[in-house]
Amino acid sequence: MAEINVPPAPPVTLVIFGAMGDLTRRLLVPAMINMTRLGLAGDGLHILGVGIDPGDDQTLRNELDAFAPEPGGEGAVEKGEAWERLKNRISYLQGDFLQDDIYRSIVARIAQAPTGNAAFYLAVQPGFFGAIVDKLADHELTLEQPGAFRRIAIEKPFGRDLPSARALNAQLLARVAESQIYRVDHFLGKETVRNIMTARFANLMIERLWNADCIDHVQITAAETVDVGTRGKFYDVTGALRDMVPNHLFTLLAMVAMEPPNSFDAESIRDEKAKVLKAIRRWTPQQARQDGVRGAYTAGTLDGRPVPAYAAVPGVAADSTTETYIALKLMVDTWRWHGVPFYLRTGKAMAVRDTEVVVQFKPVPSPQFGDSAAGVPPNRLVIQIQPDEGLRMDISIKRPGLAIETTPVSLEFRYASQFDVAHLVGYETLLYDLFIGDQTLFQRADAIEAGWAAVQPFLELWAQGGMPEPYAPGSLGPDAADALLARDGRAWHSLAAEENAPGRRIEGATQAK
Amino acid sequence: MAEINVPPAPPVTLVIFGAMGDLTRRLLVPAMINMTRLGLAGDGLHILGVGIDPGDDQTLRNELDAFAPEPGGEGAVEKGEAWERLKNRISYLQGDFLQDDIYRSIVARIAQAPTGNAAFYLAVQPGFFGAIVDKLADHELTLEQPGAFRRIAIEKPFGRDLPSARALNAQLLARVAESQIYRVDHFLGKETVRNIMTARFANLMIERLWNADCIDHVQITAAETVDVGTRGKFYDVTGALRDMVPNHLFTLLAMVAMEPPNSFDAESIRDEKAKVLKAIRRWTPQQARQDGVRGAYTAGTLDGRPVPAYAAVPGVAADSTTETYIALKLMVDTWRWHGVPFYLRTGKAMAVRDTEVVVQFKPVPSPQFGDSAAGVPPNRLVIQIQPDEGLRMDISIKRPGLAIETTPVSLEFRYASQFDVAHLVGYETLLYDLFIGDQTLFQRADAIEAGWAAVQPFLELWAQGGMPEPYAPGSLGPDAADALLARDGRAWHSLAAEENAPGRRIEGATQAK
Repeated sequence: MAEINVPPAPPVTLVIFGAMGDLTRRLLVPAMINMTRLGLAGDGLHILGVGIDPGDDQTLRNELDAFAPEPGGEGAVEKGEAWERLKNRISYLQGDFLQDDIYRSIVARIAQAPTGNAAFYLAVQPGFFGAIVDKLADHELTLEQPGAFRRIAIEKPFGRDLPSARALNAQLLARVAESQIYRVDHFLGKETVRNIMTARFANLMIERLWNADCIDHVQITAAETVDVGTRGKFYDVTGALRDMVPNHLFTLLAMVAMEPPNSFDAESIRDEKAKVLKAIRRWTPQQARQDGVRGAYTAGTLDGRPVPAYAAVPGVAADSTTETYIALKLMVDTWRWHGVPFYLRTGKAMAVRDTEVVVQFKPVPSPQFGDSAAGVPPNRLVIQIQPDEGLRMDISIKRPGLAIETTPVSLEFRYASQFDVAHLVGYETLLYDLFIGDQTLFQRADAIEAGWAAVQPFLELWAQGGMPEPYAPGSLGPDAADALLARDGRAWHSLAAEENAPGRRIEGATQAK
Repeated sequence: MAEINVPPAPPVTLVIFGAMGDLTRRLLVPAMINMTRLGLAGDGLHILGVGIDPGDDQTLRNELDAFAPEPGGEGAVEKGEAWERLKNRISYLQGDFLQDDIYRSIVARIAQAPTGNAAFYLAVQPGFFGAIVDKLADHELTLEQPGAFRRIAIEKPFGRDLPSARALNAQLLARVAESQIYRVDHFLGKETVRNIMTARFANLMIERLWNADCIDHVQITAAETVDVGTRGKFYDVTGALRDMVPNHLFTLLAMVAMEPPNSFDAESIRDEKAKVLKAIRRWTPQQARQDGVRGAYTAGTLDGRPVPAYAAVPGVAADSTTETYIALKLMVDTWRWHGVPFYLRTGKAMAVRDTEVVVQFKPVPSPQFGDSAAGVPPNRLVIQIQPDEGLRMDISIKRPGLAIETTPVSLEFRYASQFDVAHLVGYETLLYDLFIGDQTLFQRADAIEAGWAAVQPFLELWAQGGMPEPYAPGSLGPDAADALLARDGRAWHSLAAEENAPGRRIEGATQAK
């Protein structure tokens, strides 16, 4: 169990819009069970579920009781005594999010609650975000008073391009303050993501090297083995770029690339994250064509199971041009990152599940190693985010023997080897911060818009036509993604499991004998 | 077994002065057995032992045959078939090193040998070095000709202070060329010592940090658990400083502190090593008093065995002022190391056996960590030389949990985990290089003299009187050694086994909770 080094959150009523939904079942409630067990939340935590489905308090409790996650999968928490305690503080309101009735009921419920503190969690289709906030404001549910905070947590996707994100921000901010809005990026609940900042600023050995003088390029990868499965309808209007880049991958990019904040308070950190996202160079249409690759998986097999082509997934349009894979080259126009490309890739139905940041350093100027100089691979710092969390430095040492020859080795640290970190679902941190009012791990309006602005050239280009490149399930994406780096004389870092896969090119490993 | 990535050495007659001695038995012959087994030396290797003890070829062979080292200790090699092959190429000459007869016999033996190549290994008391070389030269044994190299390997100690080292160099160089002289420092036969250079120049992540901008100070430790034992007579005229510092510890210091050589050829590397040793600041008598600590162990117990006080060791003078421990603070006056202290310590009868170099980086400028800033320990690169060989980086990461707090962890690589390196005695590399004529791992005259020059102020100061500080066997040396660093606001790095010893201060470990 991760150590708990914080006091419990204050009493609060968490109003969940979409209480019968998947997110509530798999992540929000399991996180609150953990919070209850760990003392992060006390008896002052009440959950008011709101949904379109008919039912009463007992319906929702039964629904959550009956939820049977896969062992070890999302939501598979030890319910035990904490659940028994929490369950009695769960209630339910049925109603239409677009009608006033439900909000009047919420007002009444909160008035009866032991605390005026309330957080509204919008676990609903994004089309409802603006409307719900308007209604909350209409009913003065967003009105903060001493001893009664009012906060709104909004799940992704926050907009589907730059104009829609701007419009949504404008709609929200017309009614509530930025300080009340918690735009969720669940990547920020992960230890290793938050560790990027710590590792950089707590270690002179890392931060002193963290610039264009020393770093050749950065790779950010989020490879998934799962395919689109039954989510065709949702996915086809989203695609890999919208689903992953402006939120998750840019969260990683910002953590890697930001300047040191003056302090670790929320605004200082969010200032720096926004600053670096705003510095991502806006590609021209021609540059976007050159520096973006989209792919869609074909029919095939993955780990022995048959995978239908994306185009054949139920809910996907027959003429869909939606991508299930993207690879991008981006430049960050700051003094620190001048000339250092950031290569991003993410996709579904890929060979391995692996989220990682690879910081590749420049080659050594080593006339000393003579003919073998070409064989001294560059150093890499690899930040492993999932499935395992850890940190690795790839360096070269003297190969044992009489000659002076190098051999690559890794200095490695795995979180799991030293800490028991496996039992949290990731939302504990986010909900805790929502309850205590710490916005550090949530996305600010300007950062959201900067993220959309950076991907907008690709969205616009791809909207003009063309098709994603095909790639086989179980591969590492389309050939064009390899070509994107090859053009710069670089190659994608081999992914964790890839090294064990027969017949795959192992980049780096053959360089030094 | 370490990988053999070199061709076998050319044929050679190795003439060992002191063939019946300890070094021959424990190190030279075991190394040649290994070399024979590994193909580093072929049937062209002949050993001609020379000694004062009566006997013939068979006497020496029997002597070596009968040698029974401790299992796993020095000389404990697998003799096997390689020894049977090598044994027949061992012969012996009895005689007086100071008389001509023996040299005439050597001339005759070499004339009969299948090769004119000869190396003379002086495994004798240092008082004989000059005289033997004179005699070798008198008999033209040092005269090189095409197809007949002549080289002289000299064991430490090479001089006992600056004037005597200068005199010995002058005596040798009057008769033979520097290129023929191989001054042995067996530390240079160790993988990790040679790896320091490789690790620095093959890794941008290391070499970019390797300067006074990033490094706070360097610690070089060679702690031994063995006491003086039966070697009182030898040790009392030597002491810890002469025994360890100008050779072994300065070899480590030079590897750590030298500038990048233009190439890895012998002269380029030796130029840089000499350059940095010459840059060690010459202390005034007053500075030497302040920056040097000597100690001698008292009576006590170590690992349960009783240890008599050094003063009570047979062969040690009743009024001995010889030190069994020293700690020094040195400054290296180069641009790279401006203001970076090098702290050196070595001693006998200490708590642990541990030879290591600790490079401690500057603290992070971390206002971000607020009150816990004092708790972010500085980064360290630890080069472990014995008993285990390895490399470790001590860094800080985010402690798992909801607050942003750091915790120290280590990224580690151990040679033994990846390579089978345990079966060499260390002299294989040195003898191989002697036979192929590579002087990289041997000390050049100017480096030897620079080393003595650096310790000369301490020798002169201590010759004036005073007594070493007492320290208990099984401790880490006298309190004055701790005070030496405490004065600079620093502390000795905790040694490997120390962390497990109850009641000992664990430096660093309590800083970050």
